[in-house]
Amino acid sequence: MGRWEPDARGRLLQAALELFAEHGFDRTTVAEITARAGLTKRTFFRHFADKRDVLFAGSGHLHEVTVRAVAEAPDSVRPIAAVAEGLKAATAIFLDREGSRVRQAVIAANPELQERELVKLASLSAAIADALRERGVPDRTASLAAEAGIAALKVAFACWLAAPGERDDAPDLPRLVLDTLDELGAVAAGA
Amino acid sequence: MGRWEPDARGRLLQAALELFAEHGFDRTTVAEITARAGLTKRTFFRHFADKRDVLFAGSGHLHEVTVRAVAEAPDSVRPIAAVAEGLKAATAIFLDREGSRVRQAVIAANPELQERELVKLASLSAAIADALRERGVPDRTASLAAEAGIAALKVAFACWLAAPGERDDAPDLPRLVLDTLDELGAVAAGA
Repeated sequence: MGRWEPDARGRLLQAALELFAEHGFDRTTVAEITARAGLTKRTFFRHFADKRDVLFAGSGHLHEVTVRAVAEAPDSVRPIAAVAEGLKAATAIFLDREGSRVRQAVIAANPELQERELVKLASLSAAIADALRERGVPDRTASLAAEAGIAALKVAFACWLAAPGERDDAPDLPRLVLDTLDELGAVAAGA
Repeated sequence: MGRWEPDARGRLLQAALELFAEHGFDRTTVAEITARAGLTKRTFFRHFADKRDVLFAGSGHLHEVTVRAVAEAPDSVRPIAAVAEGLKAATAIFLDREGSRVRQAVIAANPELQERELVKLASLSAAIADALRERGVPDRTASLAAEAGIAALKVAFACWLAAPGERDDAPDLPRLVLDTLDELGAVAAGA
């Protein structure tokens, strides 16, 4: 393996998910991941802190994309519509449903990873609420709109993973998130 | 210290919260908690697994009370109204705002405790959704109504802790949760 490594990160991600699916997260080593990807450990640690990090590697980017889209929503829109813009931008990143399924199954089987996933979502919610406050949205409304968005995201993501269909006829995740947000509004307004 | 220990559990809770507030969670030992409460370590471990457990001691009861109230809501009410019944019953348990404030500050300062708190809320959400499904509520609506409820609970609880006022004129938490749920409906429906 030379110094030229086209998409080393993507290959490591792919290899790691395959191995997690085949042998489980706990029984997979970094050495196995790098061997499968045909790369060195040194390359692995240039991209990831550890094998756990592979599962959460996209978090930072997701965060940024979401917050930027909330901030850049037109001034005239209501807070929840700004949140919807954020989620639309965030979910446009997810294309690989098979990889997401494996990731979700790995996380579901490991309490420590579940905790990290929950922390990630809570911090995304806090970041969205902050971005809304920056737009001048009152404190409590900002928190509620952000929490509503994350709730819709969770439910929509689970539907997307569970829905039948192959690559080409899979439901569109950003569309699903927006529909779920509407549905949440209808459900919550019925109290 | 005799074998007769009136409200040993309550005294241990009180002593632990005082010490956490005074010295921080990490620097408080079980020995200090039992000394402050005037009880033995043996008594402590009859009630709690460890000092962390003191902070989450009410979870099981909260869970039960919430799920039972959701299940027992009148058949005719909409899913979110059944969730509201659950939250009303759950939050009626919280009376000690000062103790809750200390607890919340301890948790906010410790990432591991934050994770446990998030796991607790996620499992409460899942339990509420299950109770709704038992009532015949469709899968997705059940998840959304439960997530909406937990979102409102989080925001309302934070408001309750932050609100000024002494014991007697503190806002009523169950009332605050119901108002927040209404507000969530209005906010989410604005997309």
